[in-house]
Amino acid sequence: NAEILSSQYGLNLFLAGLVLMFAWAVHAAGLAKSAVLAYLVTLMLLQLVWMAWYVCRRYTQKRLIQDKDTHAGARWLKCGITLFAMITLIMDSFKIGYFVGYSDCLSITEGIFPVTHAVHTLVQVYFLWCYAKDIIQSFKTLERFGVIHSVFTNLLLWTNAVLAESKHQLNEHKERLITLGFGNISIELDDHAPQCNCTTASLCSIFSQGIYYLYPFNIEYHILASTVLYVLWKNIGRNVEHLQHHKIPFRFQGKTLGTILGMMVFATTIAIVVVYLIQIGRTKLKSEIALMMFYLYAIIVLTLMCAAGIVALVIYRLEDRSLDVSKNPARKLDGDLLVGTASGSWLLSWGSILAIICAETHPSYTWYNLPYSILVIIEKYVQNLFIIESIHREHEKSHDDIKTLRILTVSNGSTLSPAPSYKEIYNGINGIHNGDLSYKFNGSVCLPESNGTGSPDEEKSEPCKADAPSASGSSRYRRNFTVNKRRILKNVAAFLFLCNLSLWIPPAFGCRPEYDNGLEEMVFGFEPWIIIVNLAMPFSIFYRMHSAASLFEVSCIT
Amino acid sequence: NAEILSSQYGLNLFLAGLVLMFAWAVHAAGLAKSAVLAYLVTLMLLQLVWMAWYVCRRYTQKRLIQDKDTHAGARWLKCGITLFAMITLIMDSFKIGYFVGYSDCLSITEGIFPVTHAVHTLVQVYFLWCYAKDIIQSFKTLERFGVIHSVFTNLLLWTNAVLAESKHQLNEHKERLITLGFGNISIELDDHAPQCNCTTASLCSIFSQGIYYLYPFNIEYHILASTVLYVLWKNIGRNVEHLQHHKIPFRFQGKTLGTILGMMVFATTIAIVVVYLIQIGRTKLKSEIALMMFYLYAIIVLTLMCAAGIVALVIYRLEDRSLDVSKNPARKLDGDLLVGTASGSWLLSWGSILAIICAETHPSYTWYNLPYSILVIIEKYVQNLFIIESIHREHEKSHDDIKTLRILTVSNGSTLSPAPSYKEIYNGINGIHNGDLSYKFNGSVCLPESNGTGSPDEEKSEPCKADAPSASGSSRYRRNFTVNKRRILKNVAAFLFLCNLSLWIPPAFGCRPEYDNGLEEMVFGFEPWIIIVNLAMPFSIFYRMHSAASLFEVSCIT
Repeated sequence: NAEILSSQYGLNLFLAGLVLMFAWAVHAAGLAKSAVLAYLVTLMLLQLVWMAWYVCRRYTQKRLIQDKDTHAGARWLKCGITLFAMITLIMDSFKIGYFVGYSDCLSITEGIFPVTHAVHTLVQVYFLWCYAKDIIQSFKTLERFGVIHSVFTNLLLWTNAVLAESKHQLNEHKERLITLGFGNISIELDDHAPQCNCTTASLCSIFSQGIYYLYPFNIEYHILASTVLYVLWKNIGRNVEHLQHHKIPFRFQGKTLGTILGMMVFATTIAIVVVYLIQIGRTKLKSEIALMMFYLYAIIVLTLMCAAGIVALVIYRLEDRSLDVSKNPARKLDGDLLVGTASGSWLLSWGSILAIICAETHPSYTWYNLPYSILVIIEKYVQNLFIIESIHREHEKSHDDIKTLRILTVSNGSTLSPAPSYKEIYNGINGIHNGDLSYKFNGSVCLPESNGTGSPDEEKSEPCKADAPSASGSSRYRRNFTVNKRRILKNVAAFLFLCNLSLWIPPAFGCRPEYDNGLEEMVFGFEPWIIIVNLAMPFSIFYRMHSAASLFEVSCIT
Repeated sequence: NAEILSSQYGLNLFLAGLVLMFAWAVHAAGLAKSAVLAYLVTLMLLQLVWMAWYVCRRYTQKRLIQDKDTHAGARWLKCGITLFAMITLIMDSFKIGYFVGYSDCLSITEGIFPVTHAVHTLVQVYFLWCYAKDIIQSFKTLERFGVIHSVFTNLLLWTNAVLAESKHQLNEHKERLITLGFGNISIELDDHAPQCNCTTASLCSIFSQGIYYLYPFNIEYHILASTVLYVLWKNIGRNVEHLQHHKIPFRFQGKTLGTILGMMVFATTIAIVVVYLIQIGRTKLKSEIALMMFYLYAIIVLTLMCAAGIVALVIYRLEDRSLDVSKNPARKLDGDLLVGTASGSWLLSWGSILAIICAETHPSYTWYNLPYSILVIIEKYVQNLFIIESIHREHEKSHDDIKTLRILTVSNGSTLSPAPSYKEIYNGINGIHNGDLSYKFNGSVCLPESNGTGSPDEEKSEPCKADAPSASGSSRYRRNFTVNKRRILKNVAAFLFLCNLSLWIPPAFGCRPEYDNGLEEMVFGFEPWIIIVNLAMPFSIFYRMHSAASLFEVSCIT
């Protein structure tokens, strides 16, 4: 019940902040930006106090053995958060510099905010590195409040960054419209340029320009941190079965093709984005050429991604391995987030499709929009299926020694051990369908099922191949087939990982054809379509980063 | 994996419909109402085909014994759906009459839609009555698609109804503003009155008036149907432990006080709503008096509800019973929906609070708005805690005979039964902390722990009292205390049930102070606040109906 108590507290915290930001965004009477910043600073300070308290308590109670959730807070996720956090720190220092430059006419909260934010970032990254895997079993109610407070503080900081970024994008879009001579839409720039002159003029413009290029990283940092904290919150008071979870090292071999193809896509994307940003909004013709280039490129990449995803799914259908259905907050959150955030871009795509159907005039570039939108929908559909199926697969690690021991215990045992251990046995049996590492086991191709126990039905289903002297050609063929399948899956995962990372770049850095092709704006009207894009785009951007993270995990465990 | 496959299909279906309705709502170029209706009709026909197929298949395979989820599709829920469905049928007949009247100038889809909708309603209610408890184990992929299609078709019909209702409310609000002489806001009525004359003029106006009074029931019907279907979808392919779940009859005795108080609130609400709707928008003074009356009344009711909820929570803290944490889609959905939809009204309340803080002028009635908004937040917070804790409580039925049997099995057993049965034993042990019915067992106050096994530590913790000849007064005192606690809880649940039903009426029938006190509109601006209200209000209204349904269940099982 403390779960409901704390989640409702967090929700209200979040909603209050949301209303505050909304009011600021619509220029509500009597509300300054400083009110929003003050609220955020308060929340961050509260979180700092709680984290300090938690770290102290953990330090004094070191002897207490604590459970760890091995699935939560994977190392590569922490590395990603640290990278983004470092860029966020740079952004904070830019903001401080900007404030110093304009210190005459900016409210003091604009200076306090980046300082607090920098401290908050440092402490939070330390906290996540050390305690993300904890399963808290004491002081549960207080801990729940602390963790959920942190989750929603990060979400609010995310919302704040998204809002600033959206305003900036909208301003740029309006400037482009003015350049192109669309005077019929009532355009007012939502500028927050201070009223006084900067004391160090050249630096100030660098700072204000630079901040917007660093925002996408700040946005990803907060959302990733809040997902890790959310998993920590879900883990409070949970009973875990102690599964040995070997560390999975990242290996490069066996995914050369996928990586090379992916790197090519990555490089092309950066080139395309640069050309797009230079060309768009100059003249009508240049804009149209830039749009067509972008659509053509995106159609090719998305088609490749769809094909890769479908190949992987077909391979999964061919091999009939059992799925791991045990409870796991980190994995469940991954799946829900993928489907949930994909909805954002699906909404945009359906909007585009509807606009194309309803529009009266069809400039040539709009016809590229239709296959692009349809491919976006299909690609995310296929990719979600692939990722979710992959992370629910059994891991490839060999548990056969443990399992043998346990089955022997059961067969001989006349006394009962307590229930959890019996449950573990069942988990053990579920967890042994492994194939990859067992090949390395003494160089033999003996599947672990036949070590030790040798019950007849197990031998029938997966017979031991290499230990038997008459290793037939068919078994070698089968082994090659399995190895090939595994290699294809690895390459697909690596390719999709790099593609998703690439496709994150265009929307995050202001290459948004949803704004620039005027089609949807014409059909839906300027205001309604801008609202839809601004609501759906953050989720669409987050989807790319999150699926890249998930695919990295997949390419490690496959 | 079929779960992800089908849920993504459903989501895309939903998003496409959502975009279509949004485009219609913002008067997108080249899109008529008939496109939206045609889409809905197609979805309904598809659902009808699937339901017919499912019913046929169930009929031919009658001999197959199917599992049932006893928690899903409770009888009172089905009764509620049937009631709302009947009113929906009346609405459909009104719509058909309206179409006949204006048949010269209305598109043919406006006539097809209500006919299809009526057939769809009839078949769906039959389907829900007969098959809501099914746990489908065959043809899983096809069934998943069918059920999720039904879920999202109902959600889209809900959205459509909400949209029509919102437009109607907004028009009424704008008419009131015109009456009060607020000419400064650019007002355009979003009227869809047909261009030709009605053939039977008097009937047409009755129909068009009547439709809007019946919409709230139609809205509730669709959302309730989609929750039941969602639970059916979650149950596909699930393995249930066969728990005996006794039918719980609704009993009136023991909750007289709560029911009487609740009925008084109910009657007062109807009176208040009628007075409010007559007074509001006539003159400025009458509007203010109506608003003050509404706020005062709501503050009193909400305070009473908070107090009742807190009393119930304190009682729960006093008795230390274990919670039932077994997996259960129906219950989990209930909890999530309560918290999720409460967010809608929390958002509105935080908006009001912010508006009061920021506003420059404060007419007297705005000060009533502040405690009202705060009380709304607290009341939902407390009520959610109470409901979720109640539905997670162990049922009051006596399992002691089963439990004794099982513990005996364990103590004697030297061979192992399969894992599920072992798990059941654990469930059994969790499920025996009951106090109420065991008192009736031979009239003794002996706690069930001491039947049969009699292990020393259990006897120490809860010694058997009444079998001993010296039955002291303290045991009788304790029994009375328990009976009293139970009676209080019953009354609280009954009272809260009727209060929630009452509080559903004002917003559902157009008594919306968020529109009528001009405060938020002044601070946020007309358009932004209208958007917030129109997005959040449907969830707020649904919250009241859903919490009433949950509280009805609670008052039955307590």
